[in-house]
Amino acid sequence: MNKPVILTGDRPTGPLHIGHYAGSLSNRLRYQESHEQFLLLADMQALTDNANDPAKVRRNVVEVALDYLAVGIDPNRTTICLQSHLPALAELSMLYLNFVTVARLERNPTIKDEIRARGFGRDIPAGFLCYPAAQAADITAFKATVIPVGEDQAPLIEQTNEIVRRVNATAGLAVLPEARAVIPEAGRLPGIDGKAKMSKSGGNAIPLSASSDMIRAAVRAMFTDPGHLRIKDPGQIEGNVVFTYLDAFDENKAELEELKSHYQRGGLGDGKIKNRLEDILQALIAPIRKRREEISTDQRYVLDTIRQGTEIARERTEATKREVIEALGLFQL
Amino acid sequence: MNKPVILTGDRPTGPLHIGHYAGSLSNRLRYQESHEQFLLLADMQALTDNANDPAKVRRNVVEVALDYLAVGIDPNRTTICLQSHLPALAELSMLYLNFVTVARLERNPTIKDEIRARGFGRDIPAGFLCYPAAQAADITAFKATVIPVGEDQAPLIEQTNEIVRRVNATAGLAVLPEARAVIPEAGRLPGIDGKAKMSKSGGNAIPLSASSDMIRAAVRAMFTDPGHLRIKDPGQIEGNVVFTYLDAFDENKAELEELKSHYQRGGLGDGKIKNRLEDILQALIAPIRKRREEISTDQRYVLDTIRQGTEIARERTEATKREVIEALGLFQL
Repeated sequence: MNKPVILTGDRPTGPLHIGHYAGSLSNRLRYQESHEQFLLLADMQALTDNANDPAKVRRNVVEVALDYLAVGIDPNRTTICLQSHLPALAELSMLYLNFVTVARLERNPTIKDEIRARGFGRDIPAGFLCYPAAQAADITAFKATVIPVGEDQAPLIEQTNEIVRRVNATAGLAVLPEARAVIPEAGRLPGIDGKAKMSKSGGNAIPLSASSDMIRAAVRAMFTDPGHLRIKDPGQIEGNVVFTYLDAFDENKAELEELKSHYQRGGLGDGKIKNRLEDILQALIAPIRKRREEISTDQRYVLDTIRQGTEIARERTEATKREVIEALGLFQL
Repeated sequence: MNKPVILTGDRPTGPLHIGHYAGSLSNRLRYQESHEQFLLLADMQALTDNANDPAKVRRNVVEVALDYLAVGIDPNRTTICLQSHLPALAELSMLYLNFVTVARLERNPTIKDEIRARGFGRDIPAGFLCYPAAQAADITAFKATVIPVGEDQAPLIEQTNEIVRRVNATAGLAVLPEARAVIPEAGRLPGIDGKAKMSKSGGNAIPLSASSDMIRAAVRAMFTDPGHLRIKDPGQIEGNVVFTYLDAFDENKAELEELKSHYQRGGLGDGKIKNRLEDILQALIAPIRKRREEISTDQRYVLDTIRQGTEIARERTEATKREVIEALGLFQL
């Protein structure tokens, strides 16, 4: 039981897609061997920019849990838990807000970027500005030391560690461990239209529950090289979504390198590479979709999984909260 | 049991003094007849500007509870409870932070004034900026509709009601009631040195646990009218702390009016009015001090009182949290 603790998870705002698979889910399947893994269904964090549509968040809690189970997350080795049902996370969040200044939160590059991306302007929900402190609560409550994050989110872990150091300094002992950001090798997958962000709302994602026809249609519609008009013309690899996806999902790297050269020389049509990608995605998604359908019929199993995981997480997070309260010398009844 | 619910309380950062008695404690003794009263020991709020000294907050939890009991707060009619031990308050706080913008919190006049008064400059703890949302959580969790506040804090209740309206609008039903600020007739008592704020740290307060000698010394040192050099000279009432205190504590209003006229005409020395005030304060504080000493010997009684009150408060606040979650349609396990 001396495995390092890893915390990761998703905001339940939509079903997961193959971008999540490439960027995180596939790693999580490996981590459940080597780490003590907690997967947080971050419904409270989802509300920081969805407060006007809580129903969307509610609906997607089960959808995301289904995605986890469908790809092979094993609840006996990974604890799937629900953020809103772990009061210690809110309590630690409120505590940590006193250990970080407003100016520091506003300087956080991730928050700056996300505020811009969401078009909040001056109307930033306070919960959104404060979510790095909430994330520090999530991470420390589990005493997680390994946090997989996208490259753009590494500053959030630095923020967490600053809070950890302030809490430890105030307590006069190292009650909380610092955490380390792990940035996955695979970068973020673009949408099928070539846009940087794959998202359901953008209509450019292939969900993990996609039907065979949806996969085919998505690959057919995929952005390649708009200058590659005739098969015999040389084609571009950079920004060509089909090759980006092949890089992520094609395990035969030697053949893939050959195809790339051929495509760049000219003489290889988009149809051929799309067929190859489609076969790979169909083979990847078919068993996930099948397992998803099977589990969907047993909602009680999904709920029980979340319930049991949340119970385990509750014990863990309550214990940390008590330790922090004791270390800081706060009043205990 | 159809009494209106009143929520009030104190930040446990120091023992209470006669300013608290005049401004709030005396009213609370009356409210316990007419209202269902909750007294919150706001230790989490105290941390918003005392995060570097949690021990001070811890020490003062019992001190403030002792003050409550000593002045005659009856735990059978008033529920004394401890904020940090009511997780629903933190959970609702985190939720409400999504229903208020950073810009709105920064515009709050009370927060602006307090940031200035505390000299935070740019280094405002995030918890301090956010405390109006936490206060909204406190108020609504008890479904309190009557909130006694100082004049300068009325904007906080307006802030609470804005959050209430946004939550109710999102839920599509009036799950939370709006609250009404009640501003006590007696304004804030100045310090014995004439400074606007009486505070232990300012060394210008008369604590409710003051010894007879301390009361005498404080009244002797009290700021009167620096221009009133000879007894026969006319004296000033305005800004004369002795008369301000007599206004607050002297029940014989007719005699007091006569003394004021006499003082203004000339011929009434400071010694006379100080003697009168000292007698009144000695008579007010003696039974409080005595009862405080008695109760202090039974720490278990004090702790049990807080424990039992917090238990009652926990049921109440958890019930409200569940209602809010249900009304907003958030996920429930």
